Amino acid sequence: MDLVHSAMSVSLPKNWRSTMHGTMLYGPRDVRFEERPDPKIIEPTDAIIKLSAACVCGSDLWPYRGIDVIKQPVPMGHEYCGIVEEVGSAVRNIKPGQFVVGSFFASDNTCEICQSGYQSSCIHRQPGAPTGAQAEYARIPLADGTLVATPELPPDDLVPSLLSASDVLGTGWFGAVAAAVAPGKTVAVVGDGAVGLLGVLSAKHMGAERIIVMSRHADRQKLALEFGATDIVTERGDEGVAKIKDLTNGLGAHSVIEAVGTHEAMMQSIRATRPGGHVGFVGVLHDVEIPGREYFFSHVHLHGGPAPVRRFLPELIDLIWNRKINPGKVFDLTLPLEQAAEGYRAMDERRAIKALLLP
Amino acid sequence: MDLVHSAMSVSLPKNWRSTMHGTMLYGPRDVRFEERPDPKIIEPTDAIIKLSAACVCGSDLWPYRGIDVIKQPVPMGHEYCGIVEEVGSAVRNIKPGQFVVGSFFASDNTCEICQSGYQSSCIHRQPGAPTGAQAEYARIPLADGTLVATPELPPDDLVPSLLSASDVLGTGWFGAVAAAVAPGKTVAVVGDGAVGLLGVLSAKHMGAERIIVMSRHADRQKLALEFGATDIVTERGDEGVAKIKDLTNGLGAHSVIEAVGTHEAMMQSIRATRPGGHVGFVGVLHDVEIPGREYFFSHVHLHGGPAPVRRFLPELIDLIWNRKINPGKVFDLTLPLEQAAEGYRAMDERRAIKALLLP
Repeated sequence: MDLVHSAMSVSLPKNWRSTMHGTMLYGPRDVRFEERPDPKIIEPTDAIIKLSAACVCGSDLWPYRGIDVIKQPVPMGHEYCGIVEEVGSAVRNIKPGQFVVGSFFASDNTCEICQSGYQSSCIHRQPGAPTGAQAEYARIPLADGTLVATPELPPDDLVPSLLSASDVLGTGWFGAVAAAVAPGKTVAVVGDGAVGLLGVLSAKHMGAERIIVMSRHADRQKLALEFGATDIVTERGDEGVAKIKDLTNGLGAHSVIEAVGTHEAMMQSIRATRPGGHVGFVGVLHDVEIPGREYFFSHVHLHGGPAPVRRFLPELIDLIWNRKINPGKVFDLTLPLEQAAEGYRAMDERRAIKALLLP
Repeated sequence: MDLVHSAMSVSLPKNWRSTMHGTMLYGPRDVRFEERPDPKIIEPTDAIIKLSAACVCGSDLWPYRGIDVIKQPVPMGHEYCGIVEEVGSAVRNIKPGQFVVGSFFASDNTCEICQSGYQSSCIHRQPGAPTGAQAEYARIPLADGTLVATPELPPDDLVPSLLSASDVLGTGWFGAVAAAVAPGKTVAVVGDGAVGLLGVLSAKHMGAERIIVMSRHADRQKLALEFGATDIVTERGDEGVAKIKDLTNGLGAHSVIEAVGTHEAMMQSIRATRPGGHVGFVGVLHDVEIPGREYFFSHVHLHGGPAPVRRFLPELIDLIWNRKINPGKVFDLTLPLEQAAEGYRAMDERRAIKALLLP
């Protein structure tokens, strides 16, 4: 909001808001910050939140780079936390004024699939909800099922970590859960983006004895070590697999977190896992075709997909609130929201691990 | 052995044996029963067993049908049970005179992979051991790690069930374990061959509430129902998937046992499983390529491969010994070993579910 609007708002009705601003992707490497329609309650289960912080997701880079083709300009951003402004008439548990974190998949959290812990496959799920969270305000569908409130309004320094719980931490955490990380195990992490790094943090928290991270970037290696990595492997592909086998008595890791989404990364992950071990994959799979014969004889468990972040939110918020984990460290660049385009550029060029955007 | 040899053996030294006979595959649909060299102790960890019964495996049909191409004549058969004739100097636990059942993968049962329950990926594994168990005698490598003895010599009527534990039951059982079958769950079984049918038996034993078997053959449907199936689905492919969803409130089964090994069967299995559910695949994967994007959004766990039968043998032998399960019912054709070729033909033409061969 500009100064005039801010000044004006003093004398305007409580629910009045200026026309808001948000980011739109128009095509490859064409991110614009512009006026957007104010989000409104459409369904009685909706909530409108004022975003406290937003960010750029690694998955936003797929359309940004033109690998995922978009047919029309799209609002960007699906990671969010903020203050509830307004709720629909059917919303029971979420109240205006609360600070909330939600998953990037809206879910009712009551269906049989949600109850089994797979809220991102909820029978009423709304993928990519909210639409356009790199903005000042956002509409969150299925607010009662999707949002989790913090105990009270958080201090500013916890906001980045709470934001991370919405997707990037929740996704790294799910990667570790899907890879069956447990005390005493050796874990390898393929991918040194923010998700992979938070996979390291998650594995450490879950008691992994040894955490091998595959990374060639000094800044990411440093953060990985800070999050609990014990070994860095700079080799990739078959050489990377050989290096992990060298480090594990020839057997491979017990658990591998795949946080990239390419065929090469997936095959590297399967091959770096010992028979009976687990690959947890959370990079959105792109050109992947898993060859049956090789996979059959690998004896590797596969599990993954879009992280059911809602399952983990209460625990993650609690860990952040009590300062047991500090996932917000993945944000190594902070920009005003209107400079979102620079955040994309910095991540695309690997100058930043992850960009925090402040409205 | 023919009558002359049998008569002669009375006056011959205890360890003397006639030249034995066994089956060889020369090419597509060309199975011959012929003289074979007597198996001998080669490594000090070997045992020689006199087979009490042999059988034809569904996987034998891949080379029989020419789908798996063989370059030279190969001895056939890898499912076995029988009486120990002789052991090598390093064998400690297995003794001549014992009745034993073993896995089709020889394993040391002591390495880290074996100890984690994946003996068919043992670091010293010998696949397809023994070589040629559709014979009178067989050499079993790594006897101490591979063979499990019954409490005493079994009555004849238990021999078919004990034989089944060696592979077909162990494989169906692993399919159910890999599919995370548990009390109260709905299980679907893709494939109505002997492995699929014993997957039904396994799921029933593990407490599945509902067991849906996909089958179009009256004899197999009947046995499936006897083993505990609650529903029969005759549709295949997308229609079969739709039928399973109809039966499961639109969600899909919790657990699916894939007991075929084709791309169609694998995709049908993944699509018939609810988000968060498990596919256990035990059909040797042939033309399978699992598409990453679809698999990513399925949220399905995948696990399978060559069954680590050795893990389950003590429990399976115990269940059979105490007549808690009767897996030997899958043998609906019994032939003298020398008529092995007819056993292959009957299974190939689906006139038999599984052929038992008696030496």
